Amino acid sequence: MNLSHIEHIGIAVKNLDEAVSFYEEILGLKCYAIEEVADQKVKTAFFRIGQTKIELLESTDPGGPVGKFIEKKGQGVHHIAFAVNNLESVFPELEEKGVMLIDKTPRKGAEGLNIGFLHPKSTFGVLTELCEDPKK
Amino acid sequence: MNLSHIEHIGIAVKNLDEAVSFYEEILGLKCYAIEEVADQKVKTAFFRIGQTKIELLESTDPGGPVGKFIEKKGQGVHHIAFAVNNLESVFPELEEKGVMLIDKTPRKGAEGLNIGFLHPKSTFGVLTELCEDPKK
Repeated sequence: MNLSHIEHIGIAVKNLDEAVSFYEEILGLKCYAIEEVADQKVKTAFFRIGQTKIELLESTDPGGPVGKFIEKKGQGVHHIAFAVNNLESVFPELEEKGVMLIDKTPRKGAEGLNIGFLHPKSTFGVLTELCEDPKK
Repeated sequence: MNLSHIEHIGIAVKNLDEAVSFYEEILGLKCYAIEEVADQKVKTAFFRIGQTKIELLESTDPGGPVGKFIEKKGQGVHHIAFAVNNLESVFPELEEKGVMLIDKTPRKGAEGLNIGFLHPKSTFGVLTELCEDPKK
């Protein structure tokens, strides 16, 4: 597997508007997009910093994955996403190596990326996303 | 404040050797340094991925910050570190804006960087490190 960079870091927050203000006014980053991902039951805000994006995630449903995460662990880093080439071929390779997968084939994520998640039980507690930009 | 990139992501793990094997053999990254930071009661392993490093952290003392973190939240992302210029001037600026600081002046961290932490209560649950390379 050839990981090129950290595509984004997903951060679970209770209140997206307040968190966006902090990232803009205190950290000096600029929010360039707000997007709702109905499938994941989240509203997201994106910031660029170098090669990486920060994706703030507010749950739109307490029963959704981010709502449950905040209930269990509090606000904080929800997942790390690595950019990878040949995403399709990576999943069978990982499964063969005994890695627990949440997705066995790529699906569509935010910003039109093809994505898939590895289970945190296999990744030392870090929910890990692999993603590929189909436009590249 | 001018954040240029994500310098590293700190990940708390229970067993450094096992986690290093996963990052090398499954994710295909290369561990380039193992360092003990006595001050923080951790043993660390470093990997480069694009502009960013991954810093795996194993506690050397259950009463240390990473030991306590794992006890409370389990393994996972412990902190995010942003690269910043003029670190010294940033702390008074943040304090004036009402941000809770763990460090009020820079101190030495791993790899010879000057570092300081912001309190997760002010940063939406993410323990946030700012760091500056004195050699740059």
